[in-house]
Amino acid sequence: MPKMKAAVFVEPGRIVLDEKPVPDVGPLDALVRITTTTICGTDIHILKGEYPVARGLTIGHEPVGVIEKLGSAVQGFREGQRVIAGAITPSGTSNACLCGRCSQDGAGTKHGWKPLGGWRFGNTIDGAQAEFLWVPDAAANLAPVPDGLSDEQVLMCPDIMSTGFAGAESGEVRIGDAVAIFAQGPIGLCATAGARLMGASTIIAVERLPERIAMSKKMGADHVVDFSKGDPVDEILRLTDGRGVDVAIEALGTQATFEAALRVLRPGGTLSSLGVYSSDLRIPLDAFHAGLGDNRIVTSLCPGGKERMRRLMATIESGRVDLGAMVTHRFKLDEIEAAYELFGHQRDGVLKIAITP
Amino acid sequence: MPKMKAAVFVEPGRIVLDEKPVPDVGPLDALVRITTTTICGTDIHILKGEYPVARGLTIGHEPVGVIEKLGSAVQGFREGQRVIAGAITPSGTSNACLCGRCSQDGAGTKHGWKPLGGWRFGNTIDGAQAEFLWVPDAAANLAPVPDGLSDEQVLMCPDIMSTGFAGAESGEVRIGDAVAIFAQGPIGLCATAGARLMGASTIIAVERLPERIAMSKKMGADHVVDFSKGDPVDEILRLTDGRGVDVAIEALGTQATFEAALRVLRPGGTLSSLGVYSSDLRIPLDAFHAGLGDNRIVTSLCPGGKERMRRLMATIESGRVDLGAMVTHRFKLDEIEAAYELFGHQRDGVLKIAITP
Amino acid sequence: MPKMKAAVFVEPGRIVLDEKPVPDVGPLDALVRITTTTICGTDIHILKGEYPVARGLTIGHEPVGVIEKLGSAVQGFREGQRVIAGAITPSGTSNACLCGRCSQDGAGTKHGWKPLGGWRFGNTIDGAQAEFLWVPDAAANLAPVPDGLSDEQVLMCPDIMSTGFAGAESGEVRIGDAVAIFAQGPIGLCATAGARLMGASTIIAVERLPERIAMSKKMGADHVVDFSKGDPVDEILRLTDGRGVDVAIEALGTQATFEAALRVLRPGGTLSSLGVYSSDLRIPLDAFHAGLGDNRIVTSLCPGGKERMRRLMATIESGRVDLGAMVTHRFKLDEIEAAYELFGHQRDGVLKIAITP
Amino acid sequence: MPKMKAAVFVEPGRIVLDEKPVPDVGPLDALVRITTTTICGTDIHILKGEYPVARGLTIGHEPVGVIEKLGSAVQGFREGQRVIAGAITPSGTSNACLCGRCSQDGAGTKHGWKPLGGWRFGNTIDGAQAEFLWVPDAAANLAPVPDGLSDEQVLMCPDIMSTGFAGAESGEVRIGDAVAIFAQGPIGLCATAGARLMGASTIIAVERLPERIAMSKKMGADHVVDFSKGDPVDEILRLTDGRGVDVAIEALGTQATFEAALRVLRPGGTLSSLGVYSSDLRIPLDAFHAGLGDNRIVTSLCPGGKERMRRLMATIESGRVDLGAMVTHRFKLDEIEAAYELFGHQRDGVLKIAITP
Repeated sequence: MPKMKAAVFVEPGRIVLDEKPVPDVGPLDALVRITTTTICGTDIHILKGEYPVARGLTIGHEPVGVIEKLGSAVQGFREGQRVIAGAITPSGTSNACLCGRCSQDGAGTKHGWKPLGGWRFGNTIDGAQAEFLWVPDAAANLAPVPDGLSDEQVLMCPDIMSTGFAGAESGEVRIGDAVAIFAQGPIGLCATAGARLMGASTIIAVERLPERIAMSKKMGADHVVDFSKGDPVDEILRLTDGRGVDVAIEALGTQATFEAALRVLRPGGTLSSLGVYSSDLRIPLDAFHAGLGDNRIVTSLCPGGKERMRRLMATIESGRVDLGAMVTHRFKLDEIEAAYELFGHQRDGVLKIAITP
Repeated sequence: MPKMKAAVFVEPGRIVLDEKPVPDVGPLDALVRITTTTICGTDIHILKGEYPVARGLTIGHEPVGVIEKLGSAVQGFREGQRVIAGAITPSGTSNACLCGRCSQDGAGTKHGWKPLGGWRFGNTIDGAQAEFLWVPDAAANLAPVPDGLSDEQVLMCPDIMSTGFAGAESGEVRIGDAVAIFAQGPIGLCATAGARLMGASTIIAVERLPERIAMSKKMGADHVVDFSKGDPVDEILRLTDGRGVDVAIEALGTQATFEAALRVLRPGGTLSSLGVYSSDLRIPLDAFHAGLGDNRIVTSLCPGGKERMRRLMATIESGRVDLGAMVTHRFKLDEIEAAYELFGHQRDGVLKIAITP
Repeated sequence: MPKMKAAVFVEPGRIVLDEKPVPDVGPLDALVRITTTTICGTDIHILKGEYPVARGLTIGHEPVGVIEKLGSAVQGFREGQRVIAGAITPSGTSNACLCGRCSQDGAGTKHGWKPLGGWRFGNTIDGAQAEFLWVPDAAANLAPVPDGLSDEQVLMCPDIMSTGFAGAESGEVRIGDAVAIFAQGPIGLCATAGARLMGASTIIAVERLPERIAMSKKMGADHVVDFSKGDPVDEILRLTDGRGVDVAIEALGTQATFEAALRVLRPGGTLSSLGVYSSDLRIPLDAFHAGLGDNRIVTSLCPGGKERMRRLMATIESGRVDLGAMVTHRFKLDEIEAAYELFGHQRDGVLKIAITP
Repeated sequence: MPKMKAAVFVEPGRIVLDEKPVPDVGPLDALVRITTTTICGTDIHILKGEYPVARGLTIGHEPVGVIEKLGSAVQGFREGQRVIAGAITPSGTSNACLCGRCSQDGAGTKHGWKPLGGWRFGNTIDGAQAEFLWVPDAAANLAPVPDGLSDEQVLMCPDIMSTGFAGAESGEVRIGDAVAIFAQGPIGLCATAGARLMGASTIIAVERLPERIAMSKKMGADHVVDFSKGDPVDEILRLTDGRGVDVAIEALGTQATFEAALRVLRPGGTLSSLGVYSSDLRIPLDAFHAGLGDNRIVTSLCPGGKERMRRLMATIESGRVDLGAMVTHRFKLDEIEAAYELFGHQRDGVLKIAITP
């Protein structure tokens, strides 16, 4: 049985490079040889034990690679083809999927719905930080990479681009909207790019780190408010001349940003939440207009599936966005523990790290 | 200057019948002689001082009456015509109105948006618990009552029918949905009727009072869960065979009902909130799937304007719903203090009281 | 190799009962023993050669039956279980499916989109008018029938109920709408039921046959206009007091009904088209307001998949609609040629025929 | 009574500069001194007698100017303020307006709906090609121009920018869509800009004139197909690798472009129609998939009102689009007959002409 290297969760505080058997492939699956992958903020939650996964699991949900082996029943692809797969790998056949809610895919469950059920890589099955990746329901999930695009150019599609854009999409940003985005980490930056793509006329990002402020402007922010220099709520209201924003996107996952996002909304505005929270949230009565403000709070889990990936890559291919610039560091898979060290402590202006086996 | 009787807020704890001048009418306004009105739960909040209004204000926002006098510039109506006006009286000309957000009408403000700004009767201007009512922006707000409908049949249109239905509408109830409605006071009952009208296949109401349980079934609930006999969350999950509901409507305004509404949602479901809250709300992390459940929380303030009123009356006229049954008591305007006493303490199985000058 | 009886298209004008091998089942498929099926208007188009299918194909796309054999990879079902499958059987894994457009499923095609591609039974693969039916992509398509429902009660779910309801859904019928439905054949009747379920306050159907007029009122029509007694456009405008309707549903597939549907719309209204047309359509300039009326024309192909079927059955189970009444005749599979004869000529007040092997 | 110059429709073929009294202002109105206006394609239809208006009417519906006089009841503005008003001037108070359908405003009509009723300037009341313009319902329609924007920069907002953008908006263009736009006159160019703003990843315009081809690329087209060099349907299918487009926008008003727009749609795609047609339209059976393709045909009349104008100007102010480049010629009001001559014959690469009194 051939072996491969994989980054494995051992216990809270320890993700190590280990050896594992190369997975077998059933009729509906595919095996992808990873050429590039990356580490996500969620992986750091896993590392710290804040998001529980099984011991021994391979981590990672952002694969770029080449089809090594195709299941006998998978049509429309060929071995050797360059592909990506989304962080979310819907079956396509569950009740949730057939309702357009692939991220809550409950394939195999009684009702066909399961919270976060579409997220399998590095969560409920082995993930992408390895030499090879087993892709379930390959027909629904393999997305060929256009010839002109490099691995790094499409590396953000599986998760952060899909998630960040979903923040703007679920917020239903319209031409002429004012939009505020709280936090400009990788996902917040993609939300900024998404809001820009959808026609927002005023984009105000909130961030403190200089390199992220610079990247935020590159991604489309008109203004970046440094929350360490004053109350961002006041500043956003000032920048919108007191009007507030039509859509506020939360991209961090804290009470402070959630609450500030609510406070900058105009009546009837939408809070689009992307953050992964780690404690209960509080909705202040006044910011919520006692429940009478015609406001909406919407949450989004990363949309997946090959059609979503195709569309995101088309957007990159046509030059509408360039997220390759978010790759600030490069490591070999052999060095992934050092990469976790760097990324987990947000050292050296790191945004995203390209990992190549 | 002719005088009229009016129910006036004096101070927290005191709404009294007083005398006031009959209002004058400008070119865009109308004077309506009230033939029937009612008391709302919100009026009790005002009475208790929980929702602040100016001392001396006439209370009430649910008018049925006859046009006594029409402003010179108001076309398409005639004096003597039977009309209603919504609790919310949009100007039609503010930025909020021109965006379809009439309830947050900011006519006359800098940006044209104002939280709850469309609610004027009994809030920022004199209300309907009086012999006469001054109606601003009459062209946008007077809605003729079809001949075949009695005052009591249309008495719910201005507020609770419009609000309750909005709970189902904002929740985007679809054919085949399971819907839970928390609390079956007047607004919750209307939300039940609205969910039924929109095609929900399973409607589960939560209520304790026997007469409200009976009315809930009449309005379309398939099941009514008595929360005094067990945890309604457990019971709703049992009734949906573990699936949870597609839409949960909160119609009370408390932490307990808000939280329970969140807990009975399937992943991807919508919490449609109608309640007027009186303290901060808490979103439990688990019920919110850490922000990754593709859930939505939407709030609605009563939609107003003559087109909304016309549509609601058309629904009653065609026999789709009969909300006249919700009038459980009748008082003269002279007796309104007794009516407040009864309604405020929810005595004698009261749902709605018809008040006639 | 075991044999079974099947209604087979031989040539234009001839569908005959023949013998065929019972199909084999692969890992993802299922074999369903048909207990009840029916004939659709589309089958008559096929019979007449107006809609071309391969010679030798088994006709029929409305199956009720029992799982005879389950593919090895199909989870969540058991042999012996009562099920239905939709007329449209999406793969769930094509680009169209992953976009929520299952009826245009292009599984196996280059782009993953194919016009009408989701319709396979009795179109591109053998259909349901047989003793056994091979169901592809069984995980996405088998929908268990609730115990309390008879075969005839759910017989309309696979096609006409799903299609007719889609007419109301795509038209976005709202509470208080006036809706006109042109033609009250089986699909038009279901559109009437769907409009009623979604809260239309005025429903005007157009039909001539007395038994269909009677059934139309049962399904929820407030008025039925007999087009043989006068211009239905005039009559609908009269019934709506000159206003016109918010949504007009075309359920026949002719120029006359399409055009009339356009003419009864208020400005900004929606024409929801369900008919299968057999020639080019003309949009009259005046009825289209020269392209400036803010109108919409939407078409719908029957939504399929197990979640759709589950929802439709839930609606029947809760007593919201009773479409069993539309079964006017019953035949054995052995007699299916006589059934075609009766149905094709619309003799004897026929609406739908239950066929039992 | 003071006089002013105005471009007046005399009879088919003749629009002449004439003298008229300066209009009076009632309490709800405003008088605007025009500083810049322009000629629209619709004005040429009027000139030719193809779109009938009353003899003696002042033409023009695209005003930029300064408030000369404010009605006594109009709040929130001041005389001397620079403003624009939309081509469509909704009352805000009709049933259509209160339903979000301002362009079909039926203020003063029995039902409150009227086809094209929101279009008043240069259609049912005197228009903007004059020294002064009477603006009805001023509170809903005056939109202050931000200080940094010139007249020419905002000259497209009242009509062609609002209309062209509506083509993309009604088509519900999403991130990653392929969009085709037929004809790159002023409105088609704005549709191109709108599709780009909303995130389309592939934009294919169809046009023949070299200067419009150049402008189309500037507005965001990735490809411009010259229909004089081959069938644009074939070329669009080739450019989309056979997939077709998600949204096709018709911006001319002919059978040929309408039909081609239908033919390039993928199944489930949307045809968004902006053209003003002058004869019946034909929908080819095959392009319509016999009514089973899940397609939509939507039409849009220019959205108006001050909030729309504010949003469009915000989009310009933030540098998202620059439509000032579309002003190719400049004339004095005194020379307007020559301007009509040039514009009507599309001489000299004309796109839009700035007219200044």
